[in-house]
Amino acid sequence: MEIPYKIYLEESEMPKAWYNLRADMKNKPAPLLNPGTGKPMTLEELSQVFCRELALQELDCETPYIPIPQEIQDFYKMYRPSPLVRAYCLEKKLGTPAHIYYKFEGNNTSGSHKLNSAIAQAYYAKQQGLKGVTTETGAGQWGTALSMACSYFGLDCKVFMVKISYEQKPFRREVMRTYGASVTPSPSNTTQVGRKILAEFPDTNGSLGCAISEAVEAAVSNEGYRYVLGSVLSQVLLHQSVIGLETKTAMDKYGIKPDIIIGCAGGGSNLGGLIAPFAGQKLRGESDVRLIAVEPASCPSLTRGKYAYDFCDTGCVCPLAKMYTLGSSFIPSPNHAGGLRYHGMSSIVSQLYDDGLIEARSAEQTAVFEAAEYFARVEGILPAPESSHAIRVAIDEAIKCRETGEEKTIVFGLTGTGYFDLYAYQSFNDGKMTDYIPTDEDIAKSLSKLPQIK
Amino acid sequence: MEIPYKIYLEESEMPKAWYNLRADMKNKPAPLLNPGTGKPMTLEELSQVFCRELALQELDCETPYIPIPQEIQDFYKMYRPSPLVRAYCLEKKLGTPAHIYYKFEGNNTSGSHKLNSAIAQAYYAKQQGLKGVTTETGAGQWGTALSMACSYFGLDCKVFMVKISYEQKPFRREVMRTYGASVTPSPSNTTQVGRKILAEFPDTNGSLGCAISEAVEAAVSNEGYRYVLGSVLSQVLLHQSVIGLETKTAMDKYGIKPDIIIGCAGGGSNLGGLIAPFAGQKLRGESDVRLIAVEPASCPSLTRGKYAYDFCDTGCVCPLAKMYTLGSSFIPSPNHAGGLRYHGMSSIVSQLYDDGLIEARSAEQTAVFEAAEYFARVEGILPAPESSHAIRVAIDEAIKCRETGEEKTIVFGLTGTGYFDLYAYQSFNDGKMTDYIPTDEDIAKSLSKLPQIK
Repeated sequence: MEIPYKIYLEESEMPKAWYNLRADMKNKPAPLLNPGTGKPMTLEELSQVFCRELALQELDCETPYIPIPQEIQDFYKMYRPSPLVRAYCLEKKLGTPAHIYYKFEGNNTSGSHKLNSAIAQAYYAKQQGLKGVTTETGAGQWGTALSMACSYFGLDCKVFMVKISYEQKPFRREVMRTYGASVTPSPSNTTQVGRKILAEFPDTNGSLGCAISEAVEAAVSNEGYRYVLGSVLSQVLLHQSVIGLETKTAMDKYGIKPDIIIGCAGGGSNLGGLIAPFAGQKLRGESDVRLIAVEPASCPSLTRGKYAYDFCDTGCVCPLAKMYTLGSSFIPSPNHAGGLRYHGMSSIVSQLYDDGLIEARSAEQTAVFEAAEYFARVEGILPAPESSHAIRVAIDEAIKCRETGEEKTIVFGLTGTGYFDLYAYQSFNDGKMTDYIPTDEDIAKSLSKLPQIK
Repeated sequence: MEIPYKIYLEESEMPKAWYNLRADMKNKPAPLLNPGTGKPMTLEELSQVFCRELALQELDCETPYIPIPQEIQDFYKMYRPSPLVRAYCLEKKLGTPAHIYYKFEGNNTSGSHKLNSAIAQAYYAKQQGLKGVTTETGAGQWGTALSMACSYFGLDCKVFMVKISYEQKPFRREVMRTYGASVTPSPSNTTQVGRKILAEFPDTNGSLGCAISEAVEAAVSNEGYRYVLGSVLSQVLLHQSVIGLETKTAMDKYGIKPDIIIGCAGGGSNLGGLIAPFAGQKLRGESDVRLIAVEPASCPSLTRGKYAYDFCDTGCVCPLAKMYTLGSSFIPSPNHAGGLRYHGMSSIVSQLYDDGLIEARSAEQTAVFEAAEYFARVEGILPAPESSHAIRVAIDEAIKCRETGEEKTIVFGLTGTGYFDLYAYQSFNDGKMTDYIPTDEDIAKSLSKLPQIK
């Protein structure tokens, strides 16, 4: 069967339930712990921070399929299904026998896959009768997505934006404002934790961990608000399974079998969503597909972090999660462009990695932008820096196929577009982009502050 | 039949030929004239400025269908077919019985429909063995599109960018650079005409007409270069007919009959392309669909201009075109955001308008951004300011249907996204956006300089 350039599913083929990979995991991801008691967080405890339905999803390691409410399915129809693209031009340019596909999640105004979970979280907040939600955003993709979702359901949206991104990405801020969100640079003096961090580090550029602390405080101290998070959590990976489910349906429709699936990994939401049904097959012994996580060399939680319980945030107000982590005080060097700057990794992805089900690689920034520019010129799409980590490894694997003559099928997640990352592209175009790899001492220092579990 | 949120055609349903509306026009658009002799431009004359095949297309008023070369069809497959979207959410929010559809051309990195013609023009330049092409760009959509197209075919690309856009849109410039183009703010001292304009108006913000003059000079004074233009010309409308052809195929597939088709109009490329097959039906007496052009109140060539021969550029180096024009020295007020700032209008659109086949309206900037924000929040897509002119009128027409209870089918062209127009959105969000309508005296002044035809 001839494969079109872009495979679009019919509306009737779109997923009607999310896939909960945890149900198929023999080694379940470790539970979130209450940092005070050292015991697993209960539904009641989680419900003080998260919407109740989302707290239920966070705790559910058993139900394999969770129905997608009709309102969310309808919203998905506005920008999904996303295309699975056959990269014919890239294959030709590389002269590789490999077949390359990418699942492109950038065709929505938030510019990335983040909207898949944002709309779900806003829906459950609305159902619960909340006034609004609080969150943090780094590169701004998640904040934009949440602003769109909240605007759709008429919810208030308070975004704490990592200070350096707030300054470097004023356009992101304006998109959020256009959707009616309030955006505060973090750390700010609007929260106790923010004031404390500012007192200790007055010149800080901010970090995701710090913005999370502020957003959580704003949620628990405002009546009718809950906190929502765009990555890391198991509930987020659940919602993002829509990426993998659509990908698998599209591939099955054309009889395509993947040999390698590649995703960039910051907190793990895109990777976890893309690989979900394929990792499920692997767990059930039905497939031996290779799954590769690609992270920045400047923030290498999987490849150089430790698998341990750690705080999810800098202010240490969140539950503890067992994950591959660089330590909650780890902050990537300011020359690091784009997202993928979280100190830890989704518990699900961490457990899969620890069990040897997925591989991990790190990529340096300039090599990533080389791949980004190459891809943009050949395939027409200007990719986000985050997504370009996956492009880098996909190109590397396709070049290996050229050398060995193997006709492998390579699939990667193209999570978003780079329209708001032009300062980084400018720095690359001007030959001024640099790499930064943390030293062993840097990492040892932040890891030395891991919490002691009682 | 249930209409999906988004109608995508199969690759096999995509157009294989462009539709040349001129073939069905009883009153043909007036020919381009040589400003020196006052006689119609010959193929030889046109070929000194344009690629020969494009010059042929420019002159061809007879051939109804012109095959799309396979290489262009293949490129189209990378980002086309574009979706025809049923605006279910907008209809619901407006409480209108109208059925609203939009053809969304923004899902490619250039962010607009301009790529449809850019790739065609680059292809013919490559076929002719040229080294490269020169062009102008205002808001930057055309320059970005042409950079992408030239990068694909390995052509050099010299872009003259209207100075105020160059300064206000550094990100557009970086996208063009990422695709390997050189970008010069216009007027510049790299051309004779630029130096002359700078000498006369040292503080000018530049204009499209001026940038065209520079690009034409750069083309004719560099061996192996030709000039390409992103709008106005009949060849461009020919290429853009792909928009209307896809729209019509999608509507026919679902048995949808349009009552009103709306497009924004600057030079007329999007409007002319979108309405082409429908205007053809109208010309053949097969349809009475209403066709509405929407232009900015600050640059109202159709609604307040004169139908006369005029220069296409400020420097008066180009052929004369008969068109609705405000005079080639007309420059919209600097507070005008976005594109749609050309002093004239496509000859084809002008003739159709003069013959009463299309209607025209103008919209003020703040009313346009109100519609843009409303649309963004309801339909999820952040529209380009240009496209939002069409949204404004589509919403107005849908509200009329709410009042009369008529279940009309309204189709509009959503030509692009607003990711590079966030300064304008910021100005709107901050309540600082203003309107500007030129006075009768302003227009009379620039019209007083229309050329005398010998």
